[in-house]
Amino acid sequence: MTIKQRLGVCYYPEQWPRSFWAEDARRMREIGIAVVRIGEFAWSRLEPREGFYQFDWLAGALEILHRAGLEVVLGTPTATPPKWLVDKMPDMAPLGADGAPRKFGSRRHYCFSHEGYARECDRIVEALACAFGEHPAVVGWQTDNEYGCHDTVESYSIAARDAFRKWCRSKYETTEALNRAWGNVFWSMELGSFDEIELPNLTVTEPNPSHLLDFKRFSSDQVVAFNRRQVEIIRNHSPGRAILHNFMGAFDAFDHYAVGADLDMAAWDSYPLGFLERSRHSDEFKTRYMRLGDPDFQAFHHDLYRSCGRGRWQVMEQQPGAVNWGAWNPVPAPGAVRLWTYEAFAAGAEVVSFFRWRQAPFAQEQMHEGLLLPNSEPNEAYFVAGEIAQELNRMEARAESARAPIALAFDYESAFAWRIQPQGQDFSYFDLVSAFYRALRKLGLSIDVVPPAPEEMKGRKMILAPGLFAARPELAAAMAQSGALVLLGPRSGSKTKDFQIPLALPPGDFGSLLGVKVRRVESLRPGVALAIRDLPGAHFSGWREFIALGEEAEAALCCEDGEVALSRRDNFYYLSGNPNDELLDALLRRLLAQAGADIIDLPQDIRVRDNGPLRYVFNYGSEPADISEIAGDAVFLLGGKTLDPCGVAAFMRKDEAE
Amino acid sequence: MTIKQRLGVCYYPEQWPRSFWAEDARRMREIGIAVVRIGEFAWSRLEPREGFYQFDWLAGALEILHRAGLEVVLGTPTATPPKWLVDKMPDMAPLGADGAPRKFGSRRHYCFSHEGYARECDRIVEALACAFGEHPAVVGWQTDNEYGCHDTVESYSIAARDAFRKWCRSKYETTEALNRAWGNVFWSMELGSFDEIELPNLTVTEPNPSHLLDFKRFSSDQVVAFNRRQVEIIRNHSPGRAILHNFMGAFDAFDHYAVGADLDMAAWDSYPLGFLERSRHSDEFKTRYMRLGDPDFQAFHHDLYRSCGRGRWQVMEQQPGAVNWGAWNPVPAPGAVRLWTYEAFAAGAEVVSFFRWRQAPFAQEQMHEGLLLPNSEPNEAYFVAGEIAQELNRMEARAESARAPIALAFDYESAFAWRIQPQGQDFSYFDLVSAFYRALRKLGLSIDVVPPAPEEMKGRKMILAPGLFAARPELAAAMAQSGALVLLGPRSGSKTKDFQIPLALPPGDFGSLLGVKVRRVESLRPGVALAIRDLPGAHFSGWREFIALGEEAEAALCCEDGEVALSRRDNFYYLSGNPNDELLDALLRRLLAQAGADIIDLPQDIRVRDNGPLRYVFNYGSEPADISEIAGDAVFLLGGKTLDPCGVAAFMRKDEAE
Amino acid sequence: MTIKQRLGVCYYPEQWPRSFWAEDARRMREIGIAVVRIGEFAWSRLEPREGFYQFDWLAGALEILHRAGLEVVLGTPTATPPKWLVDKMPDMAPLGADGAPRKFGSRRHYCFSHEGYARECDRIVEALACAFGEHPAVVGWQTDNEYGCHDTVESYSIAARDAFRKWCRSKYETTEALNRAWGNVFWSMELGSFDEIELPNLTVTEPNPSHLLDFKRFSSDQVVAFNRRQVEIIRNHSPGRAILHNFMGAFDAFDHYAVGADLDMAAWDSYPLGFLERSRHSDEFKTRYMRLGDPDFQAFHHDLYRSCGRGRWQVMEQQPGAVNWGAWNPVPAPGAVRLWTYEAFAAGAEVVSFFRWRQAPFAQEQMHEGLLLPNSEPNEAYFVAGEIAQELNRMEARAESARAPIALAFDYESAFAWRIQPQGQDFSYFDLVSAFYRALRKLGLSIDVVPPAPEEMKGRKMILAPGLFAARPELAAAMAQSGALVLLGPRSGSKTKDFQIPLALPPGDFGSLLGVKVRRVESLRPGVALAIRDLPGAHFSGWREFIALGEEAEAALCCEDGEVALSRRDNFYYLSGNPNDELLDALLRRLLAQAGADIIDLPQDIRVRDNGPLRYVFNYGSEPADISEIAGDAVFLLGGKTLDPCGVAAFMRKDEAE
Repeated sequence: MTIKQRLGVCYYPEQWPRSFWAEDARRMREIGIAVVRIGEFAWSRLEPREGFYQFDWLAGALEILHRAGLEVVLGTPTATPPKWLVDKMPDMAPLGADGAPRKFGSRRHYCFSHEGYARECDRIVEALACAFGEHPAVVGWQTDNEYGCHDTVESYSIAARDAFRKWCRSKYETTEALNRAWGNVFWSMELGSFDEIELPNLTVTEPNPSHLLDFKRFSSDQVVAFNRRQVEIIRNHSPGRAILHNFMGAFDAFDHYAVGADLDMAAWDSYPLGFLERSRHSDEFKTRYMRLGDPDFQAFHHDLYRSCGRGRWQVMEQQPGAVNWGAWNPVPAPGAVRLWTYEAFAAGAEVVSFFRWRQAPFAQEQMHEGLLLPNSEPNEAYFVAGEIAQELNRMEARAESARAPIALAFDYESAFAWRIQPQGQDFSYFDLVSAFYRALRKLGLSIDVVPPAPEEMKGRKMILAPGLFAARPELAAAMAQSGALVLLGPRSGSKTKDFQIPLALPPGDFGSLLGVKVRRVESLRPGVALAIRDLPGAHFSGWREFIALGEEAEAALCCEDGEVALSRRDNFYYLSGNPNDELLDALLRRLLAQAGADIIDLPQDIRVRDNGPLRYVFNYGSEPADISEIAGDAVFLLGGKTLDPCGVAAFMRKDEAE
Repeated sequence: MTIKQRLGVCYYPEQWPRSFWAEDARRMREIGIAVVRIGEFAWSRLEPREGFYQFDWLAGALEILHRAGLEVVLGTPTATPPKWLVDKMPDMAPLGADGAPRKFGSRRHYCFSHEGYARECDRIVEALACAFGEHPAVVGWQTDNEYGCHDTVESYSIAARDAFRKWCRSKYETTEALNRAWGNVFWSMELGSFDEIELPNLTVTEPNPSHLLDFKRFSSDQVVAFNRRQVEIIRNHSPGRAILHNFMGAFDAFDHYAVGADLDMAAWDSYPLGFLERSRHSDEFKTRYMRLGDPDFQAFHHDLYRSCGRGRWQVMEQQPGAVNWGAWNPVPAPGAVRLWTYEAFAAGAEVVSFFRWRQAPFAQEQMHEGLLLPNSEPNEAYFVAGEIAQELNRMEARAESARAPIALAFDYESAFAWRIQPQGQDFSYFDLVSAFYRALRKLGLSIDVVPPAPEEMKGRKMILAPGLFAARPELAAAMAQSGALVLLGPRSGSKTKDFQIPLALPPGDFGSLLGVKVRRVESLRPGVALAIRDLPGAHFSGWREFIALGEEAEAALCCEDGEVALSRRDNFYYLSGNPNDELLDALLRRLLAQAGADIIDLPQDIRVRDNGPLRYVFNYGSEPADISEIAGDAVFLLGGKTLDPCGVAAFMRKDEAE
Repeated sequence: MTIKQRLGVCYYPEQWPRSFWAEDARRMREIGIAVVRIGEFAWSRLEPREGFYQFDWLAGALEILHRAGLEVVLGTPTATPPKWLVDKMPDMAPLGADGAPRKFGSRRHYCFSHEGYARECDRIVEALACAFGEHPAVVGWQTDNEYGCHDTVESYSIAARDAFRKWCRSKYETTEALNRAWGNVFWSMELGSFDEIELPNLTVTEPNPSHLLDFKRFSSDQVVAFNRRQVEIIRNHSPGRAILHNFMGAFDAFDHYAVGADLDMAAWDSYPLGFLERSRHSDEFKTRYMRLGDPDFQAFHHDLYRSCGRGRWQVMEQQPGAVNWGAWNPVPAPGAVRLWTYEAFAAGAEVVSFFRWRQAPFAQEQMHEGLLLPNSEPNEAYFVAGEIAQELNRMEARAESARAPIALAFDYESAFAWRIQPQGQDFSYFDLVSAFYRALRKLGLSIDVVPPAPEEMKGRKMILAPGLFAARPELAAAMAQSGALVLLGPRSGSKTKDFQIPLALPPGDFGSLLGVKVRRVESLRPGVALAIRDLPGAHFSGWREFIALGEEAEAALCCEDGEVALSRRDNFYYLSGNPNDELLDALLRRLLAQAGADIIDLPQDIRVRDNGPLRYVFNYGSEPADISEIAGDAVFLLGGKTLDPCGVAAFMRKDEAE
């Protein structure tokens, strides 16, 4: 089944006079908006006093939108509990790692472990689902908003502590088992009772990494459980509607696959310029891409969230202009909003929904641009949206979903693990995986970003899993059986699930596959490069391992100091350091060729993405690019052989056209 | 009325044996000191136990100073409540934004909103005013000391919270009005009662800017009210004495004009080297001026505080040597103390008072130099003071006050606003206004720094108001009627008084004057420069706006990308970005010529200031400068045609001399 | 008496199956380990529930080690109180300066002032000492572990506050005396009762430096007292065993000499790579020495702790590979571990003990390498230890102790003082003394690092004491009588013991010796250099003083601006600024020649240390070095005339050989 690709917008009727609504709806339709998200921060208007529901206005707004031919995704308002509710149960506030309460006055001021608050959420969600679950305008639901935003996954409250004790008791059953798993004999950390468990904050020096990992797993589970309660209530009262949540970018504090498993589809909020500014890229990189964003960041998340939604996903909030929350907030380049939108459609998004319809003149986000200025005049993205809507119609664009031959693993527990124990202070799992993603994409490949699940290994030509925290035997077996070329490392399999070094030494259960043992590791300060023999410009930086080859393994690359840099055993490779771009490029060209994958030699700043039979080409550079070699004699549905800066081209792939 | 310009010194008799006092007084007189400030930290000596007043020593000190012919400014000791008082009411401690109490052990450990402490202050001030209000030595009073120093304007205590609720109730009357003004519908922040108002700290993410702005206004009002209580008590008991407060540099956390309105004159504490070290200037700049200070920082504050004192002002604490509180504390260049002193007199100071008479060998400021070493030997500034006193006498120097043809607006609410919402993390209102001030001063102009009050617009040739937060119609009208050339922007009028974007779009009520609308804004990371067409070297950085010209407006300058950089409608100009020095210089030369103001082409590092008929010239450079073109054939009262590094020259202005 | 030099290792039998112990012991002996430290974190195994002692396992481990011929140093487990104990008295937690408790979950979670906890320590130490005090395997005891690690000397708890009040009462007897000593008249800080004393945290601005200094002295005294309780108990029950404590590197938060005075010998934990990474050296320096460490850091500490142990000392924890706690953690260069070990033996260490036997696969230090990998295979240092053990035997190496002709003072109170009042934010007493140490060592000298005690002055050729906080008349007298050339300054004698400027001006009681007065001081931002006349490349940076010469003193060096840089009065010199390496090198060459000390012209990166008749030579460079000039015709016991990178040579000194 393929789905027509459409545009959406985020709208806040409660923030504008009722007299605006009909004209707003009319203009949305006029420019080709199909779906509208509303309601997700409106609790104080839906229930201004306890139990005093005020749903009339929402019914009115739905009616107006519906009449205008718009579909609605309705948000639950649980990200913004109103003041009367907070005052009723002040201990619902999350506590920071410093022990200070995180107060009312913005949003997300709730602790995921507070049962009292969870019951209030049940109540408001049920009331809304009963009232509007079968409303003809309502085609979908969004649970809450951006779980975890502003560092809110972890709370150090009494509620969280008690829930964590319960979680540990359920997981370990005996304190002996817990003490063993955590290695609590070290530093006399042994506990005699589950009621002796503390949260891992405010310790004199670093807490036990096993303790931290379990706390992060627990905190992630609390998000999953919180979300599931809403999903179940909505399913009961709103049959046939897609339930989704809007995830974020560069965010790994809970297991998004697990939350996604309870949803019908995934969504994420894509702010290319804000995310670039917040990234750890160099100042030079940030300045170069200041008006267009990192060419690979959005694509990575599109592929990741397509996976979280098991094929179904969308962009819920698309940056339409300057935002308010970056360290600096430039206006996007002309063409940037269109390019971003097509990157999402190229990766199979069902909807790209702009945030927001009209710039609010008040409160925290008043400097966040929308399709309209605060005075309702169109801003630039208003016209861009209209243009795209027409193009989509003309192209009959549809979201396609097919397994890509290349799979890159991204694993939330690994993100937890390496945040807990970077060992070198700038080690970042997200950056490591991103570097692999970028290198693959620069070679013209369309990739699946997948969880490290056995079933994801099948039918691949190549599987890449850098930094995968813990090996599981069934995953190793699935890799072995897949027939794919497999590239692991660095740090892959270097811990057990309990955050201990495997007694067989790293890479643990991957060892039999790879035929190597990692005896020693080192992290290296910035500026230190360990050159790779016979690959000029290639080096390790930041991280390097000392490996011993088993009998069936051989050295495929070595460092200048003689240590093995890449081992090979059949089609299983282990990379024993953190590669620079030159090393990754050379290595992946070699391995992809061996795996039989098609590489495209792209000019710098050109990117390619396939959606079903369609191939999209994007220009992230500042000069026009000649893409005739890429397109061959294909007929362009969008653009042409010369691609302007910010330009988008689309054509039918030859293999599909034939 | 003009007033003889004199020297003063800060003195702490309570810190020295009584046997020192007479000799100290004699030496003060000998070198020409006229005024002595005493008493402002002496509470523990004035009232060592509750209600047990010990005023004899102070009476003795006053007597000795009086007999030596010295005048006294008496300070109220309320900046340093003693331990017994703090222990009586521990909740008088200010709470930091992190919720932690700010304890006894240094100074300013009180919350401005604590009524119990305010009553204690009433009591000690009344006791002092009764005892010494009509003492013949006492010519003036200083309230408290450096309000707000060490970030003490804002407190997050219960007392502050309750007072803020009361303040809001008084301002808004209904929660509906408050919710509307703050835009609390956003994120369900609506409040049902004034008792639901929280202080804007410890929120999960940023608080509502309107909430913050009102909290800053409230906090500023609390300082005004605290000061006014003391002023009213002193006025009752000490008729005819000038009441002042010693303000600080680069400090904008309360409205100094409002505090000044209750005073007879303003004073400030001028520490050029400490302030330079604390500034955001480049390391290169800081190193270049490490022994002399920023050539324009002191002058800006002189002009600002002259305005706060409605013409009457002084320097209460003049840096006399190395201080203890900079990140690094160099010894001033030989001549620096003299230059600083004359910069103040050139700007109309009535008194320049050195801090302090003798370096204390103990406690927090023991590394702060004075006129004397701790062992009573003269330090360098002792001789400098003596030299200046003789020169002042010879020159018959008098403080003059006249309206300058050029007015530059500095507004405390704008400082609050842009601190709350810089939008680009390095945006600084203070730096923006300072850049305009510096550019004007480098063109040889003497400037008034003024509040954005309609009555300040009259009689000017040119009015400059960069970054003025909110437009008021009566201010726009006053500008229109003034006949002056007016230069506004960037960010001028971009908010309503409630911190919302004006529905007519920025520049709000300035729009009809300027004929432009600001549709979009952007902040830019360091290193990004938007060049200005036809002005080589000129650019915007950090901030840029996209403006639409109304029918009567025209583009006077454009960016290289075609956006308007400067608009003109009649004699009203709007600058739509943050200018670099080259742009400011070129722009101001052009506009000042048009306004008919006289520009002087000064060599680099030379500055000029007029005080009545006298023109002063200062050399902040490291080489002697030839100032004969500036002086023409004038007769020098100080210095001559060649001005040494740190040199000061003074002569009668030709236009005055004729 | 000289003592045979031996190897040791740190071992945690409680962390491994009992079945491992015998084989571990056998392998230890096999490679030549002689001493094993055990037990120091094992409280939860020794007393798993309150009063339920479980000593059998420890008895078993001792028995096995003893039978294998190993000697044991037994650690008291007081650095890691178990959870049941902490839960019994939650107020035993130290409080941070921010007022937050420092919780259970790692180690050192106790306040030194908590009497309840101290009694628990008495109890467990007594039980252990009774049980094992006369065990034949036990040759020594270690009290606690790394006092002060993780910033735990100072606690801001109620227990600490009450103890500090008592300490102040005992020191000052009257509040008048305290107020006078602290200069509390300043800012009305006067106290009316000892119960009004607060701890010097959370003050609005900086606390009184005298208050801070006394708090640091008090906190140091609490460590001394805590340690002494354990020492006394152990002495009672374990006659003839050496009691030591393992101190740390670059750590000055308590007086180590005072703790050492209660011990039989000192020990320290030497982690050259971790300490380098944590130091304030430049990135260039850190990268250059990333695999070998600072060539002078370890040596300085060897000399310092030899002094703390009054001649008897050892390395308790020697880094054997990569560690886990640096910002980055490289693997040491091949040869580095051997070089480090011999640096310690060259400085007279009795034992060098590796940390740890086997890498733990779990908990906080799982990335800390040991002699064995987690799977019991040998890691590199296992073989290195074996090699060294054989060499030691062959050399019959013995720890020698003799007074060096050059003494460099290191004083903990001075470290407290300049941390309290750096005056320039990068001023560091530790760095200042280290620079002198490095300069002396680069000239081939073996040095004693000594407390500023009169008895340490005797028998020296040269005494150096930069930055010595307060002069004592008896120290000045001892210097005068020593006949040594004495070099003091900068900042020497600049405070009284109460942290006031001496009324005679600095250098206080050193003034009569030196014939100078310091009238002014300045700190200078990085990049500012005050050149020294006639010494190209030499300059002051960071700190400079303006001194007046008395009649008998003369200027030996001057700054380019004419101020005196070095004064001389007979054989007493005062250096009035912070010297760069070039200045120190030139100055020390001149003064050492005058003092009659032998200088060796060492190639860069070569260092020399004498232990009794043996001279050791070390190569910290990356190229082989020719040391034939240093060795002359001596017979090498280790190495030879060409010294490889990381190489060690040893030969009998000619003056000894003759």
